[in-house]
Order: sequence, then structure tokens, then C-alpha cells
Amino acid sequence: MIPGFKVTPWEVSGELVDYNELISLFGLDILTTEVRNLFREVFGEEHYLISRGIFYAHRFLRLALLDIAYGRANVYIFTGRGASGQMHIGHLLPITLAKWMQEKRNLEFFFQISDDEKFVLRPDLSLKDVRGYALDNALDFIALGFDERRTHIIWDTEVSSWLYPLSLKLAKEVSLSELKSLLKIDDSWNVGISFYPAVQAAPALMMELLTGKPHRAIIPMAVDQDPMIRISILLADKLDLRKPGIIHSKFLLGLKGEPKMGTRYSESAIFLTDSPEKVKDKIEKSACSSPRRCPSLSYLRAFDPDDESFFSIWELCFENPEEGCKAAKKRAKEILVPFIEEHQARRREMSDKIGDFLLRELPTSLEGF
Amino acid sequence: MIPGFKVTPWEVSGELVDYNELISLFGLDILTTEVRNLFREVFGEEHYLISRGIFYAHRFLRLALLDIAYGRANVYIFTGRGASGQMHIGHLLPITLAKWMQEKRNLEFFFQISDDEKFVLRPDLSLKDVRGYALDNALDFIALGFDERRTHIIWDTEVSSWLYPLSLKLAKEVSLSELKSLLKIDDSWNVGISFYPAVQAAPALMMELLTGKPHRAIIPMAVDQDPMIRISILLADKLDLRKPGIIHSKFLLGLKGEPKMGTRYSESAIFLTDSPEKVKDKIEKSACSSPRRCPSLSYLRAFDPDDESFFSIWELCFENPEEGCKAAKKRAKEILVPFIEEHQARRREMSDKIGDFLLRELPTSLEGF
Repeated sequence: MIPGFKVTPWEVSGELVDYNELISLFGLDILTTEVRNLFREVFGEEHYLISRGIFYAHRFLRLALLDIAYGRANVYIFTGRGASGQMHIGHLLPITLAKWMQEKRNLEFFFQISDDEKFVLRPDLSLKDVRGYALDNALDFIALGFDERRTHIIWDTEVSSWLYPLSLKLAKEVSLSELKSLLKIDDSWNVGISFYPAVQAAPALMMELLTGKPHRAIIPMAVDQDPMIRISILLADKLDLRKPGIIHSKFLLGLKGEPKMGTRYSESAIFLTDSPEKVKDKIEKSACSSPRRCPSLSYLRAFDPDDESFFSIWELCFENPEEGCKAAKKRAKEILVPFIEEHQARRREMSDKIGDFLLRELPTSLEGF
Repeated sequence: MIPGFKVTPWEVSGELVDYNELISLFGLDILTTEVRNLFREVFGEEHYLISRGIFYAHRFLRLALLDIAYGRANVYIFTGRGASGQMHIGHLLPITLAKWMQEKRNLEFFFQISDDEKFVLRPDLSLKDVRGYALDNALDFIALGFDERRTHIIWDTEVSSWLYPLSLKLAKEVSLSELKSLLKIDDSWNVGISFYPAVQAAPALMMELLTGKPHRAIIPMAVDQDPMIRISILLADKLDLRKPGIIHSKFLLGLKGEPKMGTRYSESAIFLTDSPEKVKDKIEKSACSSPRRCPSLSYLRAFDPDDESFFSIWELCFENPEEGCKAAKKRAKEILVPFIEEHQARRREMSDKIGDFLLRELPTSLEGF
């Protein structure tokens, strides 16, 4: 066991994260061979983010996969992003898996940009700040290339005309004691934070809630957000809805070897808006004290689609850490610099397209409940 | 002291309410001669709802009156209605004083219809129910005859595109412990209720918050709502805004002599939509065990503008309760039946005018904070 690490929806700290210990702490299921086989069956192949153990745990994923396999329920994808800063490459993990699943099975995809959450959470951010980040993050999202007919952005403070009433429906069913118990928060937290998990639960549950027909969300997300999504699971039980199937990812390392790449310190993260030179420079200067704390290796694990290349560098890192680190940095630059360049070109192309993706209105009326 | 009575924002029970005791319990100020004189000076005369002791307590009212007297701040009126059923004559007390103040000093008036509050509070009401009541209540409100240029309806679930982000700004400043302490609620309450006081605080504080210029709300309201509005007062202190001036009313008696007319039991209340025959019948059959528990006398106190007529019946009730009760019922019918008839005619006339009053957008952007 790795001592002194801490993972909550709001804070990740310590030298290294013990991901197995998190499974016990949060009460997750590990991705067994059986579930991985089912996943492969449903999607035709296994994504390398799963085979490489980046997505490594789940809740109720089997149910979602069986829903797709047997056509028992209409499965859609939901994930999101708290708009507290610019997006970095770590934020792409759930979106990458989501996009791949969408393409494989032609699934609807809801992407929530929770500027409201970050506003109530962060004393240092104004509403203007978070809304600015929301817009910027939305642009990074659509630059990844989605079909706007099946991909919907839920920008919380921008679509509150329907999202607020829908959230009320869910907030009504969650007591303060349930909230405090699941999120491990106390009475010093503000009432905005107490309301937010109901806002997050809206996309997680809304399709079945609104239509009364069988729907289930499949949610790829970073493992630190698990306590938050448990409010949605609680609500699914209370409202007799299908529980979302959740698949949890590990984090990308920060550039200094921190266990989670963060947005707060620009030296920790490779931002999607960093210039190609900046990206090269950041990778070059990144720390590399051991293979388990080699940032570039962590990035290759997530972004180098070539298994052969990735695993040869992986092995080198454990055999000869110094050479391995060099090779990892070199390959990380080869992968990430062109990716960032292309991303920024697509961002410019898409800059006036956000409106095409924004879910301004619900397809069904809220009057039913 | 009257034993066994209870007054909270959600429940009034007991045989009689000890209004003086409420002043101590809630920590209100009594309406002293000095404040009443100031009120008279500012508005040109004293409204009979004050001289007859129906509005009887306050918080910071003196500050609001001085603001008007010296032009120190732009004073506007705010009151509201929780949309949990049809409106009855008891709901008219704060609106009547508000309308009179508006006309005397040409003040802006914001009327909040909090269907969100009632939805999260009442297990038996659906969103459809409360939104139906909100529309119905809005119609009763505008039927009272307002200048739509200076009178604005804030229908919570209908204007959430601006109300939700604004409420977040306020929710961020209120901790769960402050909420629980002021409202005397515990962790069994739902997270929707925990958020609502921030929604109510929005109209109470928004003019100064949004413009940065001196504004103060003056809020006539029933005394049971005082614990709720204390969140707005707390927020004013935290955000360095002018605290609202609040003037508190007693309740109208229910038809059976209950201490507060309620919407839940149709036999307790005279609804604005009752037929004239129904109103006559309800008054005729109303209980009258003593002058202090004579419903008709309570209604005359609030609705008979003629002091001479009212006080002669008042005296008769104490001299000869039986005769007094008869006279009170007779006069109550003379006053209320034509009022209800005219109200319903105006309701029909105004039925398509709600949109003229609805505050769909804020005059200023929220981007500033």
C-alpha cells in the first residue's frame, strides 16, 4: 500500500496513487476478463485504453454492455468536464473512449460542461471566469470531431432553462445526510455544492426519466469523480431507473511526476492550447525519477496507438530508466506535437460551430413530472 | 404566553399564535411610533394594515425608509408567493401593502413565484402541479392591476436561464451550517431545499449586486417567512450589500378559526377563484367562538378600508360576541363578495397578459461577477 495519498472529487495528493486501494476505498468492481470480453464483443475490439489498464475499474458496466448486446435498453454515453481552466491532455481520456464507443455503436453522446460546479467550488473563480473556460472547453471538445446530430453539449449555466427544473426533480430525492455520507463533506461546504450533484445526475438519468422508456447511460470518467457520480446511482435506485454503467480511468501524470495532471499550475500540464514549441519544451523538461513516475511514458500509454512502439519503450524504461526516459520523451514529442498542431487547426475551423452542439432544449417536455 | 403554538416557514400550528412571542423568538423589531411616523412621512399617510396592527414587526425597515426619504438608495419592493395551490385572500396582505407603496412612491416591484421551492418541499406536488399553480397565481397577481413597466414577475422555473446563475453567486456564500442554524433544519431535508434560500435571495439583493449602485429592497411578508429571508440578510452582510428592509404581517384566520388561513384544505380558505355564492356560504358557515377567533372580523381588519365601520364591529364583537359575529359576517360578505366578483372579471380580462410582466431577462449581464 502506498501511504499518504488522497483522492477525492476535489483533490488528488500524495506521491503516487494506489489505484488498487482506490477500488477498495470506493467499492468499485475491477474490470474482470469476463467484462473485458463482453466489452470486446459489444464494440468489436478492445480499446488500448482498456488493454493498457488506464480504464481499470467499473460500476454496473456489465449491465450497460448487456443492454447493448441484447438491445434491452437504449444506451447513450455521458461524460463531462468541470470548467475550471483550460483543457489539458489528461482531460481527453474519457472523451477519447467515449468518442470511440460512439463511433463503434453509433451512440448518442451527452457532454456536460459544469461551470456551475466549478464556480461554487472555487473561491478564486468568478462566474465570468468559469463561463469563459466553458466556452473554451466546448471549443476543444468539438475540435475533436463529432457528429453534431448525435453529440450534445450541456453547458450548465447556458442551458439552465431546462437543466434547473430537471435538477430540482432529482434534488428533491437526495437528503443532506445522503449527500454528506457519499461525498464525505461536512456542514462547512456551501449550499451551491450541495445542489450540484443533482445537476450532474440530470444527464446521467434524464433519457429514461423523461421518456419513461428503457435507457441507460454509460459513463467513462476519471476515478476521482466516483464519489460524485454515486449520487446519480443513488437516485437511479430511488427513482427506479436504470443505473448508469461507469468505467473509471487512472490519471495522467503531471509533468513533474505528480500523480494527476492538474490545471492549476501550467508547469504540471500540457494544455490543448499550448504552442507546439511549448509542448516540446514541456516534455523535454519534464521530470523522470523512475518508470512509474515518468510523465512521458504515462502520455504514451494514453496516446500512442501503436502497441509495439509503446510496449518496447515501456520495457526499456524498466530495464534502463535513463535510456527509457529519453526514448519516451522523444516518442511523446512525435505523438503529441502533431496532435496539438492538428487540434489547434481544427479548433480554428470549428470556432463558430459550438451552437450546433449545444442542447438548448430537451426533446421532451418536463411537464410530465 | 400562548402555549403550544409553532410558526416556521413551512408550518403554523396551535390554537392561537402569540405574535409578541414571535418577535422574541425570531428577534424582530417592533414597529415603534418612530418608525411608523417615518413610514407616514415617506408615504404621505399610514396604511390601515399598519395602523390596525396587521403589519406589526420589522427588520431594518427604518433604513429603507431613510433611503427613500433622503434619496440615499434606489428602493424597490420585493415579495413573493410559493406556488403550492390556489391563492386565497390571506396571500393578498403583503401584495396589498406592496401595491400601495408602489403607487405612493412609484417604486419598482418584483414578485417572485417560487414553484421550485414548493416542488422540492412538497412530496405530493409534481413539477406540473406547481407550474400550473404558478401560472394561476401569476394571473391572480396581475388581476390586481399593476403598471407592467414597473412590475416584474419572477417565475422561478420559467426564468431559470438568469435566475439559476444568479442564485449560484449567492449559494456560494452560504454554508450548510449557516443554513441549518437559521432555518432550524437538519440533514434529513433534501438538497433542493438547501439551495432554495439562495434563489429567494436573488431578487432581495440583485439590483445592488448587478449594478453596483445603491439599491435596497423593501419586503412586506408574512411573519412565518422570516427565518427564510434571514439567509438574504446574511448574504447582504457577507457581500457588503444593503440589507433588505422587511415588514412582517400577522396571518388571516382560517374559516374554522385556525391561526393561519391555509391552502391545503378548501374549507379553511376563501380562494380568489371561489364563486361569489361559495364565498357567501363559506363566510356564513365560518366558526366564531370568540372575538379573537372570529374569522370574519379578521377579514374586515384586513379588507374593510372604512375605519369607522371596522372599529364599530370590532367593539361590538367584544361587547356582545354573538351580535358582533353576525355583524362581522354580514359586513365581510358586503366587502368580499364584490371584491371577488371584480377580481375574477379582471382575471378574465388579463388572462393573456402574463408575458407582459414576466422578467425573462435581466437588464444587466451576469458576466460581471
